Formats: sequence, C-alpha cells, structure tokens
Amino acid sequence: MDSLTNPTTEISRSEALRRRYGATPPAGGLPSDGPWNETIASLLDHRSVRGFLPDPLPPGTLETLIAAAQSAATSSNMQLWSAITVDDPATRKELAAIAGDQKHIEQCPLYLCWIADLSRNERMGEAEKADLEALPWLETYTVACIDAALAAQNSVVAANALGLRTVYIGAMRNDPARVAELLGLPPRSFVVFGLCVGHADPASRHEVKPRLPQSTVLHRERYDATPERRDRAAYDAELEKFSARNEMAATTWTRRVIARMGPIAAMNGRERLRATLARLGFEIR
Amino acid sequence: MDSLTNPTTEISRSEALRRRYGATPPAGGLPSDGPWNETIASLLDHRSVRGFLPDPLPPGTLETLIAAAQSAATSSNMQLWSAITVDDPATRKELAAIAGDQKHIEQCPLYLCWIADLSRNERMGEAEKADLEALPWLETYTVACIDAALAAQNSVVAANALGLRTVYIGAMRNDPARVAELLGLPPRSFVVFGLCVGHADPASRHEVKPRLPQSTVLHRERYDATPERRDRAAYDAELEKFSARNEMAATTWTRRVIARMGPIAAMNGRERLRATLARLGFEIR
Repeated sequence: MDSLTNPTTEISRSEALRRRYGATPPAGGLPSDGPWNETIASLLDHRSVRGFLPDPLPPGTLETLIAAAQSAATSSNMQLWSAITVDDPATRKELAAIAGDQKHIEQCPLYLCWIADLSRNERMGEAEKADLEALPWLETYTVACIDAALAAQNSVVAANALGLRTVYIGAMRNDPARVAELLGLPPRSFVVFGLCVGHADPASRHEVKPRLPQSTVLHRERYDATPERRDRAAYDAELEKFSARNEMAATTWTRRVIARMGPIAAMNGRERLRATLARLGFEIR
Repeated sequence: MDSLTNPTTEISRSEALRRRYGATPPAGGLPSDGPWNETIASLLDHRSVRGFLPDPLPPGTLETLIAAAQSAATSSNMQLWSAITVDDPATRKELAAIAGDQKHIEQCPLYLCWIADLSRNERMGEAEKADLEALPWLETYTVACIDAALAAQNSVVAANALGLRTVYIGAMRNDPARVAELLGLPPRSFVVFGLCVGHADPASRHEVKPRLPQSTVLHRERYDATPERRDRAAYDAELEKFSARNEMAATTWTRRVIARMGPIAAMNGRERLRATLARLGFEIR
C-alpha cells in the first residue's frame, strides 16, 4: 500500500494513528477503538506541502476558505483578524525572499497572509468617538494572534477536505515591517503568518510527520512530566527514521529543537519582533 | 425548516452562507457556486454552545480529539503546547469561578485546558545541557500561543464532526497564576484558554452567529478599508436582529465591541497578563 497516494477515505483509524505516531506504538498506548469518520481521517492525514502544481483553484474556493475561517470561534466576537491574498509576482518574490527564499510562496496558486488586526476596531472607535482602552495590552495582542490562528486553521481544514494542501509561513515574522509596507497595512495590524494553498505536486514527497506520544502532551488533573524522558527517546528514534526517509539530514527531534531554539541566530531576526511591533503600533503593555 | 435541529449534512451551501452572514446578502456578494462537502458544511455550521447534557463522551473520544490536535501544523515541529483534562469537581468549580461563574465549565463532560508550553523544551535543553537562547522572546511566546490555538481548533473541528459541541474559555486568562497553581503547571507554561466539550443541551438555543461581511475581512494585494463603514452598518443591523432572537439585550456589534474594548474594567484583570506571565517565567522580551 502506497502511503502517498492512498486516498484519505480508505485509511483506517489504526493506520492513521500509526502514521501520526510512527510505526512503534506509543508507550502509553492508544485506545484500539474510538469514534472515526471522514473528517477525522482528513484531519489526521494532514502534512505540510512545499511543492505545488501551478493549477489554479476551482472558482469560489477562496470565498469558501474565508467562510470557513470566519466560522471559527473568535473572542467575544471581536473578529480581530483580516486576510490578504497576494497575486502580484513581484510582491510574491519579495515575500519569498523575506522568508529565506521559500520558492513555494512564488509557486502556489493561492498565497494568503493572515493579519492580527486591531486597526479595524480602532477605526471603529475613532468613528464612534469611543476610546478603546483595551487596545495596547499583551492580552489583546494575544487574542488577535489566536483569533487569526483559529480562523486560518479552519481554512486549512477546509482546503484539505477539498483535496488541496497547505503550508504555514511563520517566516513572515522575519521582517513584519517590510511585509506591512508591501501590503499597505494600517498601524496596529501585522502579518502573523502566511499560508500557501494549492494542489500538491505528486513529484514531491509528502509523508505524515510523526508527533510526540500522547502521554507527553496530554495530562490528567495535573501536569505530569514523568513519561517525558522515555517518550522523547522513542520519538527521537521515530523522527530519525522519518528524516532518513524524507530529508537530507537524518537527525533526532532533540537535535532539531536544539538547533532551532539554541542559538539566537536561528531566530532569523525574530528576536526583534517586539521592537518592530512597537513601531507598527502594538504596545504590548 | 428548523435551523436548530436540521442536520448539518442537509444544509446547502447557500443556506449555510445565509446563516453565517445573515439573511441580508453581503454587499460584496458571494459566488453562487463553489466547492462544497460535508466537512465544509460542518465547519460553517459551528456555533459556541454553553448548555451541555451530562452524558459522557463515547470511549476513545478524548484520544481522537488529541490525535486531531497533534495533526495540526506546529512551527518547526517544536510542538510548544500541552493539554490537561480536569475532572475533579472542586477544581472545576474554582476554574468556573475564575471565569466569572461560567457554569458550563462545571457541567460539560470534558473540560480541556490548552497550555502554551515552553517548559517541555526547556527541560529537554537542561537534560541535554544545551542553552536555549530562543526561549525568552515575544516571538517564542507568540509561537506557543499559535501552536496551542491551531491544535485546539483541530480538536474543535473533530468534536463538531462527531456531533459534539464546544465553547472556548478565554477567561482562564483572568487569573493565569491561580490556574497554573491548580493544575500544577511548571514554570514557562500557562493555560491560554479552556475548552468545554459535550453534547449540546437541546433545551438551550444555539444559533449560528453571523460574522462581518467578507468584503471587510478579505483584501486583495493591499489592505483596503473602503467597504468597512458600509459593511459595519449592515452587520450592526444583522447582529441586532440576532441578539433580539437569542439574547437578553438586543444591541449592535459596534456597541458590543465598545463595551468590550472600551473600559479597562471590561478586561477582568487581563491587563495584568504580562506581569503575571513574567512571574510564571515568560520574559516576552
């Protein structure tokens, strides 16, 4: 059975869990039965894709993805997010360069930037002559980022359900000021992340990436780090095999996290996020 | 046709869009056709539910929701989140009190707290004698919140697909220090939000809440606030009707946002989030 071409609907629960947690059953185990349907299968089948065909999306796809995004919960219905599509090749090219030359930003048929947007409510306050005292706080910044993330994730689920693939582009935060300038963003808004959407290029390999065992991420009543060391050893072995199958350098999760979170240089300028957001009107008190 | 009992699968695209954007067609209009399937229908049918039956969830539901959550994208596969289930009635009661007496926190069969969790990777760094320089920055805090949100939203989609309903509880941030204490959280972790999951009580009314027109939240190439004032007037009228049908006080979106974001008192202590998180080990440089 080819795990790359087998359609989602034919994947059983046990096979989907095996892909998600690796061939070695998680030490804590998972229930042998439980609820299952096509939507759950589609969720578990997610993988990030960076190779897209140039084929355009069917008409109405963008509006459906945005309707799905707007259907996500939003804190107190404040709807503190917006989205911008970018088609212009020159803008795409510069966004790709900001993201460290991620070519898929230029190649995907739909590129969406997701915006933490306090500016709309600020304009409304100005129009209504109401002072919005809640604007300049870490709390409100956090809500805007979460609102954008919940919305974007619904659009990702919708895209997957339509047979499309996606990849988030966190590297928009490498230079939020230049991104804001390119997209004409008003003060108190910034691009939290981008999203490539399109049909996966079957010539690129896209395998479901195993995650940490549930016993490490799910706790009952109180946080319990006891299984962590055992789980991490098993997961390191699993991810090393995944890397050997899929990527240039076979390495463990531990080594990857240390490479990513160890040296400040690996942040690609994102250690300046707070200073840059202050310039863009986010006070984050 | 009863919009409360009609099963999701029977809802057409046009009916689902009418519920999501209100009876008045959005000024910008929406395409009359476009992709549609059961998963999209389920996404558009989302509504937050605060009245739950006491019925327990089918066996394996929690593990399925967590597998869905872990299937969401996570920045550089760092997996900066955890979840805790809370069953103990005394803990539930105190969490409900922190949230301003939200009784559904006590009544729902599953209460999940979603944690922005830098502590796991910090412990790993300590075990491996690696200094993780990326930990104390706003960037890393933001990634942890977004990782938690993407994961939680996948579990919400999964729950909906299983005929369950949910409501996010942002009010865990009213007192993150006490919540952390109750759940035994290690430093550099905090509960970003809670989530009630269960079977909706049919005695409670749950209607899809209309959102802002797409022409206000979706931009092309550059941010364009031109349609905003027109759209807001239409949306105010729509939400006033929704409120009259569903809630005590019929009021517009504009008045609701001003009530929520205007006075600092409406933040319920969340203006202290940054100071509290500093005490919990988040530096947010």
